Amino acid sequence: MSDNKKQTAEETRNKLLEYRSSIDNIDAALIYMLAERFKITQKVGFYKAKHKLPPADKSREKEQIARLRKLSEDAQLDPDFSEKFLDFIIKEVIHHHKKIRGGEK
Amino acid sequence: MSDNKKQTAEETRNKLLEYRSSIDNIDAALIYMLAERFKITQKVGFYKAKHKLPPADKSREKEQIARLRKLSEDAQLDPDFSEKFLDFIIKEVIHHHKKIRGGEK
Repeated sequence: MSDNKKQTAEETRNKLLEYRSSIDNIDAALIYMLAERFKITQKVGFYKAKHKLPPADKSREKEQIARLRKLSEDAQLDPDFSEKFLDFIIKEVIHHHKKIRGGEK
Repeated sequence: MSDNKKQTAEETRNKLLEYRSSIDNIDAALIYMLAERFKITQKVGFYKAKHKLPPADKSREKEQIARLRKLSEDAQLDPDFSEKFLDFIIKEVIHHHKKIRGGEK
């Protein structure tokens, strides 16, 4: 490999490593945020079970979707992706809530 | 409704609103974090297309999964959920990368 080509390959590799290092930092932040979110939804789960409230709340979900779609536009994120993301999270939360309630796994 | 019952219903409602307000704050943080993550992965996509690198990188994904599972344990989050979450995100990223490359939608 010529010196020029070697340098380019190394630069490509370094650039990719730089991007990946930022992605890894963001992923750590996401994981810690998600952990905190589930800590709260777990409390909500116990609360709903205690007060005999249903695990899912469609009107609340509708509000959340509308809000996240709006936020996504401000953040220049695809609103459809955000909706899919919220759906992914809520499914997990409802699964937890049903487990807390027991028997409805 | 007796005063006691009314108070309890109001307290229940307020407690739920308090939890939801924290969830909404965390969701806003997640959306902005995800937007930033996709800004970087978009750069990676263009970079990979330019340098003729494949959209997916299995060894990188394996490293990411191992790292996020470890982080999840520290954050008291279900590592299986984190793996599903990363998979969800990576699928979207690869879909974007293919779109950047063109024709492979």
